[in-house]
Amino acid sequence: MTLLVTGSIGIDTVEAPSGTAIDALGGSSVYFSYAASFFTPVRLVGVVGEDCPAHFLQPLRDNPNIDMGGLEIRRGSKTFRWHGKYHDDVNQRDTVSVELNVLAEKGPTIPEPFRDSRYVFLANTHPGLQLELLSQCAQADLVVADTMDLWIATETTLLDELLGKIDGVVLNDAEALQLSGQTNLIRAGRTIAGRVKRFCVVKKSEHGSLLFADGKVYPFPGYPVEDVVDPTGAGDCFAGGMMGHLASESAAAAPVPTLRRAIAYGTIVASLELEDFSLNRLRAITREDIDARLREWEERTRF
Amino acid sequence: MTLLVTGSIGIDTVEAPSGTAIDALGGSSVYFSYAASFFTPVRLVGVVGEDCPAHFLQPLRDNPNIDMGGLEIRRGSKTFRWHGKYHDDVNQRDTVSVELNVLAEKGPTIPEPFRDSRYVFLANTHPGLQLELLSQCAQADLVVADTMDLWIATETTLLDELLGKIDGVVLNDAEALQLSGQTNLIRAGRTIAGRVKRFCVVKKSEHGSLLFADGKVYPFPGYPVEDVVDPTGAGDCFAGGMMGHLASESAAAAPVPTLRRAIAYGTIVASLELEDFSLNRLRAITREDIDARLREWEERTRF
Repeated sequence: MTLLVTGSIGIDTVEAPSGTAIDALGGSSVYFSYAASFFTPVRLVGVVGEDCPAHFLQPLRDNPNIDMGGLEIRRGSKTFRWHGKYHDDVNQRDTVSVELNVLAEKGPTIPEPFRDSRYVFLANTHPGLQLELLSQCAQADLVVADTMDLWIATETTLLDELLGKIDGVVLNDAEALQLSGQTNLIRAGRTIAGRVKRFCVVKKSEHGSLLFADGKVYPFPGYPVEDVVDPTGAGDCFAGGMMGHLASESAAAAPVPTLRRAIAYGTIVASLELEDFSLNRLRAITREDIDARLREWEERTRF
Repeated sequence: MTLLVTGSIGIDTVEAPSGTAIDALGGSSVYFSYAASFFTPVRLVGVVGEDCPAHFLQPLRDNPNIDMGGLEIRRGSKTFRWHGKYHDDVNQRDTVSVELNVLAEKGPTIPEPFRDSRYVFLANTHPGLQLELLSQCAQADLVVADTMDLWIATETTLLDELLGKIDGVVLNDAEALQLSGQTNLIRAGRTIAGRVKRFCVVKKSEHGSLLFADGKVYPFPGYPVEDVVDPTGAGDCFAGGMMGHLASESAAAAPVPTLRRAIAYGTIVASLELEDFSLNRLRAITREDIDARLREWEERTRF
């Protein structure tokens, strides 16, 4: 089943203890679509400025499972740029600079041939834009969105409206506490799951994730990575692996067993991605590598 | 196989969002031994002062699996007291007051009839005392210890000596980073596992734990608890459940599959303990309840 993702495309500069990547390919839709492409065809919707070098998106174009038909190169605009610096403890990072550029302008439009997409992931952006994009996907069977602290704090009404219209939401632990007003993560996830149609996934970075669905909570440990090179994009790859598996299984009803398998896949793809900068690691692996790590992880998490 | 624990016995006052417990039975050896008693006979070694009310230790005396033959009631001394206050986020707590009392005096002695113990857990105390107690257990086959930030910072040499003599160590994530000097938890655990004979367990409270053994790392998710009443003692109950299972299986070599099962049991006993103050929850349950929750958790963590 075809999977559509809307989100950012960015020119990232990342400083990390293990090195520096300058003007690297990044952005939520980029990481998501590459991760999902191991499982299913993906349609990418995003906007860059005319400053974006022609070769910059080549890794996406070279991927036969990514349809770039939703890419807009906007005249007179500049591409989103982000510069981050990770601490020795790579769970901590500072934003050195952000240039929203094209992301501060009007959002992308979903092209006509993409409007029949049945699986839709709305990566983090203004919830008003997420609602607008969702309204362009009238045939969607399974819609999942991400969000962030800024919108939780400033756009409560629109975010509420969005939550009521989507099947699932993926967000990190701090965001889940903030959105729910709870101090316990289990209560937080349960509360949020009650505000969407089907499920809530709370990401806890190195500590794994929690799935809330059908009134139950399912915990997942993190995949232990010793040499984290660059955590940028890991959350988007998690969502990409998860949605990719759901779409590949045509599991629009998102039954819990399929959701759990999807989250395991998301965990594994994310664990691979953060072993190198940008898409470097994902470009060097195959679906076989993902399945092998998943099997190995499965073995190591039995008790 | 008989399991011996050395550790504190305390009179605890706990303030938590869900209520307050005044002068409640607490201390590491108390929580540990009660948790372990579901699995195997336990020998408790600890000291109280003569201020300790006669009825205070009755829950331990009433437990047929706990041998109180190592209890010293020291004349002229006062019992250890701790007063803590948990925040709305019960992962955060402040120490309101500590009266070390008897814990600041000379340590307990392991009574002659206990010196043939094959399984030994040295709960957190000065590593010099841990070494002294260990020297009194010449027949021990499996020795595991806990420690804390204070000793890591101030007693490096003694702690190093202790680590070299024990089979396993159980400590929390912040302590593991501190002890190893690493910023990545996986590297930290691996480093510490290389300094003891067999294994290292890193506890991550609500996020579960990591086992490092045989050069590999095995992650465990936390058991999701929505209504945490009082987390005091959960770490000791984790260790108690773990050691209790190892002793009950006569698994002194601590093979990885048995260790993993032991950690799962530790997780479950701890998850039950924190649902009420002091030993209240553990006193109300049976081994059946532990096994039932373990089965249910096992089901929920497959993917």
